[in-house]
Amino acid sequence: MRKNRFLSVLAALAVVVTSTGFALADTDPLPSWNEGATKTAIVDFMTAITTEGGPDYVAPADRIATFDNDGTLWSEQPMYVQLAFALDRVKALAPEHPEWKDEEPFKSVLDGNLEALAASGHKGLLEIIAATHAGMSTDAFTEIVTDWMATAKNAKTGKLSTEMIFQPMLELIAYLKANEFDVFIVSGGGIAFMRPWTETVYGIAPPNVVGSSIALKYDDTDGAPKIMREAELNFNDDGPGKPVGIESHIGKRPIAAFGNSDGDFEMLEWTTSADGRRLGMIVHHDDAAREFAYDRKSHFGKLDRALDAAPQEGWTLISMKDDWKTIFPAE
Amino acid sequence: MRKNRFLSVLAALAVVVTSTGFALADTDPLPSWNEGATKTAIVDFMTAITTEGGPDYVAPADRIATFDNDGTLWSEQPMYVQLAFALDRVKALAPEHPEWKDEEPFKSVLDGNLEALAASGHKGLLEIIAATHAGMSTDAFTEIVTDWMATAKNAKTGKLSTEMIFQPMLELIAYLKANEFDVFIVSGGGIAFMRPWTETVYGIAPPNVVGSSIALKYDDTDGAPKIMREAELNFNDDGPGKPVGIESHIGKRPIAAFGNSDGDFEMLEWTTSADGRRLGMIVHHDDAAREFAYDRKSHFGKLDRALDAAPQEGWTLISMKDDWKTIFPAE
Repeated sequence: MRKNRFLSVLAALAVVVTSTGFALADTDPLPSWNEGATKTAIVDFMTAITTEGGPDYVAPADRIATFDNDGTLWSEQPMYVQLAFALDRVKALAPEHPEWKDEEPFKSVLDGNLEALAASGHKGLLEIIAATHAGMSTDAFTEIVTDWMATAKNAKTGKLSTEMIFQPMLELIAYLKANEFDVFIVSGGGIAFMRPWTETVYGIAPPNVVGSSIALKYDDTDGAPKIMREAELNFNDDGPGKPVGIESHIGKRPIAAFGNSDGDFEMLEWTTSADGRRLGMIVHHDDAAREFAYDRKSHFGKLDRALDAAPQEGWTLISMKDDWKTIFPAE
Repeated sequence: MRKNRFLSVLAALAVVVTSTGFALADTDPLPSWNEGATKTAIVDFMTAITTEGGPDYVAPADRIATFDNDGTLWSEQPMYVQLAFALDRVKALAPEHPEWKDEEPFKSVLDGNLEALAASGHKGLLEIIAATHAGMSTDAFTEIVTDWMATAKNAKTGKLSTEMIFQPMLELIAYLKANEFDVFIVSGGGIAFMRPWTETVYGIAPPNVVGSSIALKYDDTDGAPKIMREAELNFNDDGPGKPVGIESHIGKRPIAAFGNSDGDFEMLEWTTSADGRRLGMIVHHDDAAREFAYDRKSHFGKLDRALDAAPQEGWTLISMKDDWKTIFPAE
């Protein structure tokens, strides 16, 4: 009985391996990428680090790749998705908080006055996070995020956020995995905001998601243990926080990193300044027709210092306009 | 060329799958476990959660198992291995710190007076951690740990710590992995103290190690970026910290957990109080002849509250004396 099952598994596997093998050999693993220097840089890197006996060979256990999320794997305009979520949550919770009509920063959110909200600064943002991201169990928050993601539309395009993911990056993730990479998201966004959907949307499971977090507290006082989300920042996974997040979650230094903003500078630097063949790439949002065009002066995903540094650091710019055949997955 | 390579990979795979398949089917995956209720509990659990269409089936993506380390995967007597490391480091660093001869808690360490050291309490311990675990880069610390692990001997047995790992638990880890589990260490010990050797010794890679940590800081000021270890506690992955460590690192609730002390109470509770078939087990150190015998009154690995709670919580006690044919791997 068992032997038969193993034989049929083996037969199935043979088909899969054969067809995948031929598929990889004969077809383009990056069909949404135009031919050119950028695509060549990716393929050459992969060939170099997977060529056994070659000078740049990297053993599978050390094939770690990290991806920023906002602006690297999905669109971050006209505002970060998680900010849109927080503002929607303030509106949804407002009936329970009549005092918000007169209290900043909530008043500005309810009035739709984003300039006044921005003026409330770091303190205002923390109050909004506390009101919308804390004070519930992790399970309850997961449900809130899941429900919101299923319905909330981008203010500019009217699409779901999960429809505004970048098809070429999905192919890149798959290409890395097919070459035995362990692929991680390393985002300034909230770890608990991403994990409910990254496995379905990107094929990246919760343990492989690194992000910012608020404090958590275990509560087993009422017989049904839960983990509560507390109104206190725990970790800011942005800028110099990204190498720290990588070290604490992954414990290995990546050999490939992909970002799009100055918040990714240190992750790219940490990755590419090590000895050996390394790959650092920056998604440049230069396609106003198909997505958005912004860099040095954007409120969200500002790319300035890293744009200047890219040539001497050896980071490749990915032009969305020139390098990508398509931006979003086909509907 | 490529096709040929894929065909030979396929052929090799066929041999591996066939032989592994038959091996799994025909031989005992837990040869160091005596037949009895404990071993049966493990095998029954595995059968239940892997039986497709059965009431207890769990999809591979949700097969998460967590293991405590000290006293669960290796010996923790006559003191935690990491404490022995810290004391050795104080001695090694003493020539650079002549003032330690007269300063507590260092004086007690250098005098070998562990009772006086214990009296210095939490504050003393933090000073020793600061002196021995901080103030260097992550790479430098990894090298220090690796060198020490290669030579330092257990004070009672004269063996290396990595020789005092539990053979039955290695088999259990392999058995879980063979059944598509993602296996994690969740230890009160330092994450950076474990990661340098867990992959070689247990087959558990750095991303799958969760533990206590001190603060890290990225430093790219001198052209060769590094991550510095700071003299400040960051996270205590013990007791109620374990479910929090699990949530922040793994982001999924385990379905099986293995511990040996009261520090594992909340991890076991978090794991087994969820709906569905769950497995919680406690290694009971009751074998003075082959290892050590201790529980309610031990300084290290105290097992008291969890021992009392085990029956009503449905946690299985593993008797090292009765359930394990061998304790340590053959030399």
